[in-house]
Amino acid sequence: MVGGGQLARMTHEAGIPLGIRFKLLSDTPQDSAAQVVSDVVIGDYRDLDTLREFARGCDVITFDHEHVPTELLRALEADGIPVRPGPDALEHAQDKGVMRARLDALGVPCPRHRIVSDPADVAAFAAEGLAEGAEGDGFPVVLKTVRGGYDGKGVWVVGSVEEAEDPFRAGVPVLAEEKVDYVRELAANVVRSPHGQAVAYPVVESQQVGGVCDTVIAPAPGLDERLALEAEQMALSIAKELGVVGHLAVELFQTRDGRVLVNELAMRPHNSGHWSMDGAITSQFANHVRAVLDLPLGDPRPRAPWTVMVNVLGGDYPDMYSAYLHCMARDPQLKIHMYGKDVKPGRKVGHVNTYGDDLDDALERARHAAGYLRGTITE
Amino acid sequence: MVGGGQLARMTHEAGIPLGIRFKLLSDTPQDSAAQVVSDVVIGDYRDLDTLREFARGCDVITFDHEHVPTELLRALEADGIPVRPGPDALEHAQDKGVMRARLDALGVPCPRHRIVSDPADVAAFAAEGLAEGAEGDGFPVVLKTVRGGYDGKGVWVVGSVEEAEDPFRAGVPVLAEEKVDYVRELAANVVRSPHGQAVAYPVVESQQVGGVCDTVIAPAPGLDERLALEAEQMALSIAKELGVVGHLAVELFQTRDGRVLVNELAMRPHNSGHWSMDGAITSQFANHVRAVLDLPLGDPRPRAPWTVMVNVLGGDYPDMYSAYLHCMARDPQLKIHMYGKDVKPGRKVGHVNTYGDDLDDALERARHAAGYLRGTITE
Repeated sequence: MVGGGQLARMTHEAGIPLGIRFKLLSDTPQDSAAQVVSDVVIGDYRDLDTLREFARGCDVITFDHEHVPTELLRALEADGIPVRPGPDALEHAQDKGVMRARLDALGVPCPRHRIVSDPADVAAFAAEGLAEGAEGDGFPVVLKTVRGGYDGKGVWVVGSVEEAEDPFRAGVPVLAEEKVDYVRELAANVVRSPHGQAVAYPVVESQQVGGVCDTVIAPAPGLDERLALEAEQMALSIAKELGVVGHLAVELFQTRDGRVLVNELAMRPHNSGHWSMDGAITSQFANHVRAVLDLPLGDPRPRAPWTVMVNVLGGDYPDMYSAYLHCMARDPQLKIHMYGKDVKPGRKVGHVNTYGDDLDDALERARHAAGYLRGTITE
Repeated sequence: MVGGGQLARMTHEAGIPLGIRFKLLSDTPQDSAAQVVSDVVIGDYRDLDTLREFARGCDVITFDHEHVPTELLRALEADGIPVRPGPDALEHAQDKGVMRARLDALGVPCPRHRIVSDPADVAAFAAEGLAEGAEGDGFPVVLKTVRGGYDGKGVWVVGSVEEAEDPFRAGVPVLAEEKVDYVRELAANVVRSPHGQAVAYPVVESQQVGGVCDTVIAPAPGLDERLALEAEQMALSIAKELGVVGHLAVELFQTRDGRVLVNELAMRPHNSGHWSMDGAITSQFANHVRAVLDLPLGDPRPRAPWTVMVNVLGGDYPDMYSAYLHCMARDPQLKIHMYGKDVKPGRKVGHVNTYGDDLDDALERARHAAGYLRGTITE
């Protein structure tokens, strides 16, 4: 696996029961996954020689992130190393312009969008929205750099042409999108294997705070069955059409008028699937490993009526360990997943899962534990 | 953790979510746990200098097996390193003579037993049983070396005085025990933390084949509630009286006349608790880690009405991986746990877990998968 973050850490954890040998390419020995994996190579994933040396002896390569340049992945494939997901699929998770163009061609509903060239073009894009019922001057508009953004980085919500300068400073292409009038965000997670088997996890509700995922509820409460099925089918269809192998997360907007629109794609285990570690028969990490190895996939169904995941962000406590005492004593059913990362304010350093028959109870327990671990709750 | 076997492998897996640093002392780099742990020291656990060097920087030491000599553990304790379970407790799992004497003193029901010195003494022991209702000449009698036995090794069932020669050849003390007329074997698993918190898993049925654990059913089907409670209380009481820290497995005989007698003690995660990885809210490995770190313990209750564990023994297939295809496709809910060990006939190389509402279904699925992985079932 290329990339030493928490996704690689949890993938290793899920791979241990299969008796497989797991090899990691990590930036530093301190990275989250490098702390717990036996076979670690330290190196730069942007360097072809490093990748080639790492890949030697591997049966298959997969990723903890989408940042490996596709031309390097094509070179590995030319060397005869299976790369899963492959570069043709991965490009859609790397470049939002490519992704939007492809989803348009497939007829997948997306927010109105186009590549824009400068602030004046943003104003023109905003004005175009008026024809489709937007009000006033068509602002706000969402601007995204087509590459490199995540967790709210590389995304701007601009209220006027004057605010539209920043995104163009980096000199990379900028995608403009309508600001969707959504009631909530959903995510449809699917896993697909090389020979085409696919499984769909229940569609979840994903609550963001400051552009960062905060809470995930599985399944999404009160979601219309037809809409849930539509979202699952959409994710399965995208996985198939794009040739995804492994886990695909399709982040969605549920609109006020009862539609789902695709927001983002991620081709790797995803924050919106962390609930599955304790809440599903087979976790997203276990199924990602199976898919990458072309093994039959495991049952993705939930084990409890409700599962709640809340991210733990770094706060004022540099030592989260001391908080374990209170959290574990308060809730013997709590599932803590910490990533071994240094605590920095706002950084994702772990998550907690709760599950049960009562959604309110599960929500309260998960939020309390995450808040206590962060230091925002002290009793 | 001292010892690189599968128990250490699965303890590491359970420790990853806590964000702790896990250090391993292993005999070889090929050992089951050494394959998946980052921080591995290769060395001999019977050498004090090796142990001391290994323990440097550790907050606490625990074990994958019971073979570290107690005098070395006392030396580590004298150095100021917490050892959990401590040598005073561990001695009862190392020496069956010490264990029997202590359980007698505590009034815990055990098979009739005493240390015997030679075959004639065995015959005398057998004859003593006649007074308590044994028939014929009092044979068969069970003979055990007081140290070093496991999985049927170091245990003899002898039918006559002539057969009683072998156990004395090694020159170690031999314990004679009555051959209990049992209806089945049970195991009571508990976990205890340094400040005295303890949890009890449901009492399970353990089925042995050739002296090796084959199948575990949780909870033990049809077990009288009173007897289940008695077994749990007995295990909790032994853990407390012996000062056990971490997981304690109490292997039990359920007698034809409705009693439970203690067969063996193990002070570490145990084969009879492997079902808990998929079947309990908190697994034995997660709770062992918590206990050793003196953290509050997790809920030991089952997540499903029935969980079945079947061991996978080495058979004719050197490559079990190819069997995954069939097993995973046949049963998407199957939980496979392989240990990364070389396949040798009869060696424990993994286990499978199944769970559900229907015990017969769970048993069929687990037995089929274990048999297929071993190669005794081919369809």
